[in-house]
Amino acid sequence: MTRTVVESRTRTVTIGFDEPFCVIGERINPTGRKKLAAELEAGDFSTVEKDALEQVACGAMVLDINAGVVYNSNPNPNETEPPLMTRMIELVQGLVDVPLCIDSSVPAALEAGLAAAQGRPLLNSVTGEEERLDLVLPLVKKYNVPVVAISNDDTGISEDPDIRFAVARKIVERAADFGIPAHDIVVDPLVMPVGAMASAGQQVFALVRRLREELGVNTTCGASNISFGLPHRHGINAAFLPMAIGAGMTSAIMNPVRPVEMEAIRAANFLMNHDDNGYDWIKFSRVLDAVEAGTPYPEAARASADAGGSRGGRRRRRA
Amino acid sequence: MTRTVVESRTRTVTIGFDEPFCVIGERINPTGRKKLAAELEAGDFSTVEKDALEQVACGAMVLDINAGVVYNSNPNPNETEPPLMTRMIELVQGLVDVPLCIDSSVPAALEAGLAAAQGRPLLNSVTGEEERLDLVLPLVKKYNVPVVAISNDDTGISEDPDIRFAVARKIVERAADFGIPAHDIVVDPLVMPVGAMASAGQQVFALVRRLREELGVNTTCGASNISFGLPHRHGINAAFLPMAIGAGMTSAIMNPVRPVEMEAIRAANFLMNHDDNGYDWIKFSRVLDAVEAGTPYPEAARASADAGGSRGGRRRRRA
Repeated sequence: MTRTVVESRTRTVTIGFDEPFCVIGERINPTGRKKLAAELEAGDFSTVEKDALEQVACGAMVLDINAGVVYNSNPNPNETEPPLMTRMIELVQGLVDVPLCIDSSVPAALEAGLAAAQGRPLLNSVTGEEERLDLVLPLVKKYNVPVVAISNDDTGISEDPDIRFAVARKIVERAADFGIPAHDIVVDPLVMPVGAMASAGQQVFALVRRLREELGVNTTCGASNISFGLPHRHGINAAFLPMAIGAGMTSAIMNPVRPVEMEAIRAANFLMNHDDNGYDWIKFSRVLDAVEAGTPYPEAARASADAGGSRGGRRRRRA
Repeated sequence: MTRTVVESRTRTVTIGFDEPFCVIGERINPTGRKKLAAELEAGDFSTVEKDALEQVACGAMVLDINAGVVYNSNPNPNETEPPLMTRMIELVQGLVDVPLCIDSSVPAALEAGLAAAQGRPLLNSVTGEEERLDLVLPLVKKYNVPVVAISNDDTGISEDPDIRFAVARKIVERAADFGIPAHDIVVDPLVMPVGAMASAGQQVFALVRRLREELGVNTTCGASNISFGLPHRHGINAAFLPMAIGAGMTSAIMNPVRPVEMEAIRAANFLMNHDDNGYDWIKFSRVLDAVEAGTPYPEAARASADAGGSRGGRRRRRA
């Protein structure tokens, strides 16, 4: 049974076929967030702090940390991103207990993140591009961490799911050459917008089944891509996630500060028999009660997490 | 490719692996609705009329008609149910265009319904019980209609999905002896409450896949059973339906006057590539806009159906 173990200093999260779906919080990422990018350049980490606490309270089990900001004062991310990654990781792991996912396209930032992160972080990401394989897989091996493998290669992102599967297989095989086991590869089969490609949903469901059955790997995705450009996109996301979970998807990089999607995931966990006695569903239903009574979702989730003691994942702030 | 064709006088609905999910409206059923039962005994059909129009406006593609009321004045359903079934069917098919599903445990009521219904109704139901097989399959053959096959038998409802599958196979084989093809059998694998049986969801998903792959049949279920007894049960239903659709379920007998479940089904249709260009999703998103602006869902759905012309399924009322 495939189990991908991700750890912080004190907490272990297992991504696996027999585990609740792993929600990786995507918010700590300046890409497309101009205000956050400006704050980071100015040394203001208040949004990072808020996003860390809020996502964990809302049910994120792992936090993605992306330091991909292009400073106005220095446009070279190879210089600016590594120290920012270090600072953000140190900050976040001082605030919350959950494991981290180190997310960068800059290899030096990945290595800085690996050096700073406690426990066993998830590395995000390797692709099937030759240069990327050569740069990232040695880091994966050196630090003995699991890695997200995105199924595009030097030819780009194929619209043909068979080619995306072949790219994933190539990454798994190349990793094996480094002694990295398949259970440490979490494949992202790439989710296209269903509004642009009508077969996008079916492609993902079929790919997830194949990746699981033929390669034995866990899977992840940028879940909200599926609904890009569509009205009422949370409704699309909230159907996509249970369908993907039913097909065997085991994690997603997503925004947990959304009650609709989180409700869908918790219901799907229950329906997959990954929620003993419906404990988590019943607990979450009280959060929904509070939301219906007018409490904002993050606040209701925080109150529930605080009441639940250690399950909330918040740790005392460093002095 | 399995296609179950259900027809009214003027409209054809195809239940099939490559079709949008078939929503069978469950509301016209006095079981557990004391007020409706009393109305029917008093000859008041206003709720039936309202339920027919409202369900079709909300997206029901087929309407289930159940006349299972026990009159205070006559406790023998063998006498009271057949004429009531006839009356209800005549009334409903005078109001709406959609095909009907004739639902009774009283064989004489099934036959009365078959005589009254125009087109090609769906018969609901046969089971694996010997007496029921002997009574219902000849009706299915005589009227050349499709039938819902519920996977329980003389030993009751098994908690073992392999036994429920075997019952379904027995019904399909017995039907074949009558010359009834598998594509005219819509199997209900029986949905247990997940709050009482933790494997209930997984059982259904696995059974639906087997029924489809091994017996080549369409499937249906009483969808809301899955959430029986649980808080926020619409959230469970709204995850269950997409997961069941992803596993291959092709219809459900359910309450369409619920925006959460109908949103989940329309999103799932889109994700299964059963909604060309997202036409239905975009149309439905306008209904959701109206609901968010304060319009009750049935009213918003009705306005959208009326604006959509013939897709709404309402027909001119008979004089």
